[in-house]
Amino acid sequence: MNFSSKLIEQAVAEFSRLPGIGKKTALRLVLHLLKQSTETVDIFTQRISDMRHQIKYCQKCCNISDDVLCNICANTHRKHETICVVENLRDVIAIESTQQYQGVYHVLGGVISPVDGIGPDQLNVQALLNRLQKEPIDEIIMALSPTMEGDTTIFYLSRKLHEINPSVKISALARGVAFGGELEYVDELTLARAMATRRPYEQFLVSPDK
Amino acid sequence: MNFSSKLIEQAVAEFSRLPGIGKKTALRLVLHLLKQSTETVDIFTQRISDMRHQIKYCQKCCNISDDVLCNICANTHRKHETICVVENLRDVIAIESTQQYQGVYHVLGGVISPVDGIGPDQLNVQALLNRLQKEPIDEIIMALSPTMEGDTTIFYLSRKLHEINPSVKISALARGVAFGGELEYVDELTLARAMATRRPYEQFLVSPDK
Repeated sequence: MNFSSKLIEQAVAEFSRLPGIGKKTALRLVLHLLKQSTETVDIFTQRISDMRHQIKYCQKCCNISDDVLCNICANTHRKHETICVVENLRDVIAIESTQQYQGVYHVLGGVISPVDGIGPDQLNVQALLNRLQKEPIDEIIMALSPTMEGDTTIFYLSRKLHEINPSVKISALARGVAFGGELEYVDELTLARAMATRRPYEQFLVSPDK
Repeated sequence: MNFSSKLIEQAVAEFSRLPGIGKKTALRLVLHLLKQSTETVDIFTQRISDMRHQIKYCQKCCNISDDVLCNICANTHRKHETICVVENLRDVIAIESTQQYQGVYHVLGGVISPVDGIGPDQLNVQALLNRLQKEPIDEIIMALSPTMEGDTTIFYLSRKLHEINPSVKISALARGVAFGGELEYVDELTLARAMATRRPYEQFLVSPDK
């Protein structure tokens, strides 16, 4: 694309570096900002800059936080004996929005992926192992994405955690057909596994918070 | 959505104010920027800030420019007797990328839309009328979107331009079925108009730059 302005070109290049944003969308965003007042754009850039420069991570669960402890770890009403291991803040938000989980979290910051050069040392694994040694943990729930990398990470973590405390209960999210989906569109692997790991009918009558 | 951090919440709010970006996408962009180095994010915010604060508009065609004249108006090899009237920079880029148009442009900055409170005074209309009075113009091509607002704008501009110079040729983009489309999916209005304004077959054999 031939822009009439170097300033526009650079701003478009910056936006199109963001995930899922191509050149055309980037140009649309740039032209939108150009129509806004300078004050509005100053607030936009300032808030993004503040976010990057002032952000802290919770010393306990490694989640993004404005303080030493995030508001979930600081909440004494939550069950601190149950840790849900997730990949990032988005997963915390997803689980929190179900309003079913009462425990606390541990944010790994990713999953083990040798192809991308991400091993346990690049993730918040040691912090999780330290928590198991210091805190009175009953159960650790692996809520990682049902992918090859997610499963590898679950396998690796389970082994490490069991080495520290063989009696800790380690569980993972149930796998099966999604609620509301049409059976004919479910992929073969999921359907085969859901069939093999079928459960007694009565269990479906139990409400999720029991 | 319950974010664990006020800084994240504010940055997400800023991003989701952009057109076509919802809360989930905004969060994805924020978390992406959070993973980048502070230098990368500083360049991001700086370039957007520079773009907004330092941008100029071409004194002739009102297009976005880094200088007094944009690089199209400053180009002596272009046909300055033909003006193509467009809505914004995106349309200039779209027409330039066809590599067929040799004339210059005039950027209106929008189209007349009473519903949105946009009248001729909010657009670069007077600048266009002034150009017709001062410059030796042969033809003015209306390349506005084929919408109700676009057609209203074409009608209004044509009348005003004819008042100044009744001999100036005013044309508009051809309307009809799009190249490569399936006929059965063309909307009724377009198909009816394309039928009514059908052209001799030989004209299609003429290459577009003749």
